[in-house]
Order: sequence, then structure tokens, then C-alpha cells
Amino acid sequence: AGVEMAAWTRAVRGLLLDVSGVLYDSGGDGGVPIAGSVEAVRRIKASGLKLRFCTNETQATREEFVKKLQGMGFDISVAEVTAPAPAACRILEERSLRPHLLVHNDLVPEFAGIDKANPNCVVIGDAAENFTYANLNEAFRVLIGMEKPVLISLGRGRYYKETDGLKLDVGAYMKALEYACDVQAEVVGKPAKAFFESALAEMGVPPQEAIMIGDDIVNDVGGAQRCGMRALQVRTGKYRPCDENHPHVKPDAYVNNLAEAVDILLQQL
Amino acid sequence: AGVEMAAWTRAVRGLLLDVSGVLYDSGGDGGVPIAGSVEAVRRIKASGLKLRFCTNETQATREEFVKKLQGMGFDISVAEVTAPAPAACRILEERSLRPHLLVHNDLVPEFAGIDKANPNCVVIGDAAENFTYANLNEAFRVLIGMEKPVLISLGRGRYYKETDGLKLDVGAYMKALEYACDVQAEVVGKPAKAFFESALAEMGVPPQEAIMIGDDIVNDVGGAQRCGMRALQVRTGKYRPCDENHPHVKPDAYVNNLAEAVDILLQQL
Repeated sequence: AGVEMAAWTRAVRGLLLDVSGVLYDSGGDGGVPIAGSVEAVRRIKASGLKLRFCTNETQATREEFVKKLQGMGFDISVAEVTAPAPAACRILEERSLRPHLLVHNDLVPEFAGIDKANPNCVVIGDAAENFTYANLNEAFRVLIGMEKPVLISLGRGRYYKETDGLKLDVGAYMKALEYACDVQAEVVGKPAKAFFESALAEMGVPPQEAIMIGDDIVNDVGGAQRCGMRALQVRTGKYRPCDENHPHVKPDAYVNNLAEAVDILLQQL
Repeated sequence: AGVEMAAWTRAVRGLLLDVSGVLYDSGGDGGVPIAGSVEAVRRIKASGLKLRFCTNETQATREEFVKKLQGMGFDISVAEVTAPAPAACRILEERSLRPHLLVHNDLVPEFAGIDKANPNCVVIGDAAENFTYANLNEAFRVLIGMEKPVLISLGRGRYYKETDGLKLDVGAYMKALEYACDVQAEVVGKPAKAFFESALAEMGVPPQEAIMIGDDIVNDVGGAQRCGMRALQVRTGKYRPCDENHPHVKPDAYVNNLAEAVDILLQQL
């Protein structure tokens, strides 16, 4: 893989890193760093490459999320994180949308400045334990009661892995509401093009000079490639061997983990 | 409508009736008969027309369901009801499938004779309060753990109306699992062609001589028409005025309720 990557990695000026499954494995206990990833982030920063963390995490505010990662030893700050909730807030404000929220309790503070009275849209995130029968019916009733239902989804992931097993992600519940109301959700977060573009803009690097590193073949790799970036898939997190036979998406290279990716990339600089 | 129907209603020998929204409105209290429906069922039986109740009800065994309807005054017996669970049991036995059940507690007895050890498929019904985050994750893990996931869905309804409001139906949750596992569910119940055909066979009437009467534009009317039957939509139950502008399905006629349908049909005999 090192040889194949050599030519195009020389142009690289910035990295986008997925977080869960690349830096750490999440779980009920908060999660554990993936071997070598703490050091890998330090080496990226020392190299002079631009770096941005690009996550679909919607179970906590960026503040809480960053605090958790710092607790594991990662050199990361809130200003370096691109996440769906702030992107959704910009859309809500631009279009005068007042959301009914079906999100994780710990994400609610991200929407503190947003008018939520008399809702004219539904925002769905990875609500986890909040995905109750009652809450889904309530979000459905808000949507079906609108003349033109507006559903904004913070990601479209199918599932993710926690230390106690696989969990359905927001995309599955988004599909349930889409079907029930015969609407198409607007997706904020990976793999939406606008989301990658805003991360690139924040980094000040054009797509041709940036690499995305993620564990999700569709949302990380496929999404980044559609923006004109190169993308590596790590064999950690939710990676499964059958991803290497994906019918539509082929990463520019595979690496065993973030540490190996950084080894190879820094060699080429 | 009476005039338009006259020509083809003369050939009618059998009626298929949807139950919820046609005979009664369901609710937490068990439900209330729709005005005129008890008498309408009696008049059909007295007329000599063949009759079959064709329901996607999966919140109770047929025994409990029929008992509830008898309690409201309806002349109905278990042997006259075509319902998804028994149809699913026939499929499970034919194909040696052992189900993981995600269904309403009260439906479980319908699967009493079925081997459920070491499941090799998932059967999803309208599980209502059993549609918890934990139960959905569990059904998902069983499916995603199969080499070739098999998902059998007892209906594909979007939502239904109870006295305390609209509720998401099994179809929404089916879509969530379909998306998460990248599979297509096999639907048992309306609008599946095999389901209408078995109801017709049980009645001994060919589709050209049968009429379906239902409140669901897609699952009752559209499904029956695809089997070669005529279909009436009642303006009760989940009927909404916008159904009359449905892009794909047009009933052979509208009636205000079952009693009006029976008035018109019996006049033509």
C-alpha cells in the first residue's frame, strides 16, 4: 500500500480524521483508545500537516466529546472538530426552521440558541435510549401534521459498534420516518458533500490536497471521494473484511490502523 | 357512485372486508364499532354473498381479535379471518425457518408450534410497545449475524390511527431493519398478492367476482386491484381526503362507510 500511495501522498497538505473507530472504540464505559492513535495524532500535529476531526458524533456536545478524548490522552480541541449539530443549527437559522428534536439528551445543549416553539421541522440524531416507541410516534406526528414535512437527519449511518455490541444508528430511524411520512430527509454530517466541504474550508485546504481517514466505507470513504478527496479505510472500528468487496466504493488504500497511515504519509513528505 | 358501480357489481359473489377502520375504530380502550357496520355484516351474511375478513392485525391472536369484535356485536368467527401470522407460520414451516420474533406479546401464541431455537430469520409484526431501542437492536444483531439475512414482515403499513392518535406501523420499523442490514423484507399480509389469493381461495371465489372494501388506499385498494379484484375505499378509519389524489392508486369507487357500500351492492344483486 505504501508504494501505491507514494505518488499522490506527496501533494497532501491536510488530513480529515474520523474519530470513533479511528481514534478510539466507543462503549458504555466511555471507550478506549485504539493502539498507536494518541501518538499518531501528536505526530500529525508535529509534522505541520493541517488536521481536522470530522465526526458524525451526536451523542454529546462537542465540549463533552472533546473532554472525553482529552481524557484518553488525545491532543484535540473543540475548535478542531467538525460535527453535525452545529452544521444543523446554521441551516435552522438560515431557513427560520424551528425543530422538534429527537436527539440524545446530551446533545440538546448544542441547540440552546435555537427557537423550538411551534416546530416546523424534525431534527433526528443518534438518540440511542431516546429512540423509544413513544418518542418515535411523537416525532412522526409532528412530521405528518406538516403540510410539507421537513426532516433533517444528523447523519445516515446504518449501525455502529460499541463495546457491548452493534447498535442501530440514526440512519435506520431516519428511514422509518421517511417511509412513514413519504419524505426524503436532508442529511447533515457525513456523507453530505456540504459537510466535508465545510471541514475543508475550515482547514483551508482544497480537496485534491486532503486525505480522509475513516472506518466507514460509505460515509467516510465514499463521501470524501465524492468531494474530490482521496480516502483511506482503516481496518479498525466498524471495518469488516466484506467492506473490501463493496459494490460501489473503493478506498484509495487500506491501512491496518491510524498509526500505520501516519507512518506511511509522513515518510512521503 | 351507485350508478357507476352498477355494471360490475352484478357479477359479485364474494366480499373481502378489512377490519380496523372499516368495522371499528381501534384504540387503547379496545375500540368502537363504526356506525352501521354491525348491521352491514349481518346483511352481507343474509344476502348469500361469500364473506371473508382480511386483516393485517398482528397485535393479538385471531381468537382474541375475534372475541373483541364479537363483544362489539359483530357476527364473525375465527375461521372467517385471514391474518398475517398464520400465513407466516406456513412459510416458516415450508422453508424450515426458525424465527426470532419482534412482535406484540399477544401475538406470540400464534407461533406456539414453531421451533424458535437458534434463529435463522427475523419475523417483525406491529410490536407496538415492544418496539423498544433494546428490542430493535437485538433483532438487528440477529439479522446482521446471518450470512444471508432473512426478514419476514407481517405487513408494510406506514401508520394507523388509534383513539389517542396516529402510531407508526410495522412498515416503518421494517424499513429501519431493511436499511441497516441492506436486505429486502418478504411481506406477508396485505398488500402481498399471495395473501389476497389465499383469502380468495378460502372463499372459493375468483378475483373478478370479488370486491375488497378497505380504508387503506395502498394496502387494501392497491393490493386487491393488483390481484384482479375491484376495490372500494371507505371514508372511515385512516382515510384522508388527500387519498383521493393518490398518484398511483384509484379505487373503483368511494363509499362513505361500509353500510353505504352494502346498501349499494345489495341493491344490484
